[in-house]
Amino acid sequence: MGKTTTRDLLLEAGQRTFWEKGYSNAGIEAILNTTGVPKGSFYHYFGSKQDFGLEVLDRFDHDYRARLDSILGDETRSPLERLRHYFETVCERLESRQCREGCLIGNLGQEMADHSEAFRSRLEKIFAGWVDRYAECLAECQRRGEMENTLDARELAEFWLNSWQGALLRAKTMRSSAPLKTFLNVMFGCVARART
Amino acid sequence: MGKTTTRDLLLEAGQRTFWEKGYSNAGIEAILNTTGVPKGSFYHYFGSKQDFGLEVLDRFDHDYRARLDSILGDETRSPLERLRHYFETVCERLESRQCREGCLIGNLGQEMADHSEAFRSRLEKIFAGWVDRYAECLAECQRRGEMENTLDARELAEFWLNSWQGALLRAKTMRSSAPLKTFLNVMFGCVARART
Repeated sequence: MGKTTTRDLLLEAGQRTFWEKGYSNAGIEAILNTTGVPKGSFYHYFGSKQDFGLEVLDRFDHDYRARLDSILGDETRSPLERLRHYFETVCERLESRQCREGCLIGNLGQEMADHSEAFRSRLEKIFAGWVDRYAECLAECQRRGEMENTLDARELAEFWLNSWQGALLRAKTMRSSAPLKTFLNVMFGCVARART
Repeated sequence: MGKTTTRDLLLEAGQRTFWEKGYSNAGIEAILNTTGVPKGSFYHYFGSKQDFGLEVLDRFDHDYRARLDSILGDETRSPLERLRHYFETVCERLESRQCREGCLIGNLGQEMADHSEAFRSRLEKIFAGWVDRYAECLAECQRRGEMENTLDARELAEFWLNSWQGALLRAKTMRSSAPLKTFLNVMFGCVARART
């Protein structure tokens, strides 16, 4: 129990630091300082900064998938309403942070994809998992006739994730949620319109 | 003339280095080494690394806008064909680089927006300029009936740029042009479909 707590404390501090500063600029020393964990203890849990970074990603993905499943699996709403609710929730969270920070996975993808095959493949696996979850919900929208089915649900899910990542990047650069609102307008008003 | 050349040499090397490594990890020392320019000369042209970085952005934007104008202003094609030609051209260029590197402005937006107001506002100005140029072309598509006009051309242009940035990020993370192809399929097959 004690061990789990120290480990979790480090992973939590790592996630916060990577989100704020990126991976390269995050110092293990600073993470140790904020947590009060001694250096030897860090290397007891993690072989290297890279191992630590990859575990931060796994932990983030695990927690994030639970949130995604809970919103996209909420059967009190129609699948299209769940999808809209999900993106509106993220939008509100970002607005509460003045649209800083963006998405941890998108940030690290941009930073690390060209520089570390270990990070690139882990980040891509996480993105692909999110696409699977979107595709499931989009296919359900199509089955229920809430959405046109001219596009394959999987292709639409890929487009959805990627476009959302772009909207998050622009929101950060613009420091405004306008790109997220534009995303919602176009996706729900045009791409994902009801079957007519 | 000699002065212009040294300055351009430095800006060119800076652009290449920022594209490969990002801004924080780019050392002025390394840029001087690749160009053979002495340190004193660098500080004759640029007050600081930040001034240098902002000038790299301005130069990139100037060159990029010329390319954008030449493709989107090509009156031998219809406006919708110009738009498609532009994105296909970028797609080919990225494929020739195994989808590494992405977009310089998107990369630096992701890296710098939260850390430097000078960079954030300059990058946003560049993005906004690109949106203006897309909007002009999209409005022409709508006027000529090549595209539905249910969406405002400006809003569509914003969505277009942001979604493309997301596709570029994902292409880098996936190391595949599939996200760019998906972008083209959805944008031209669904969002920008002809007026019916």
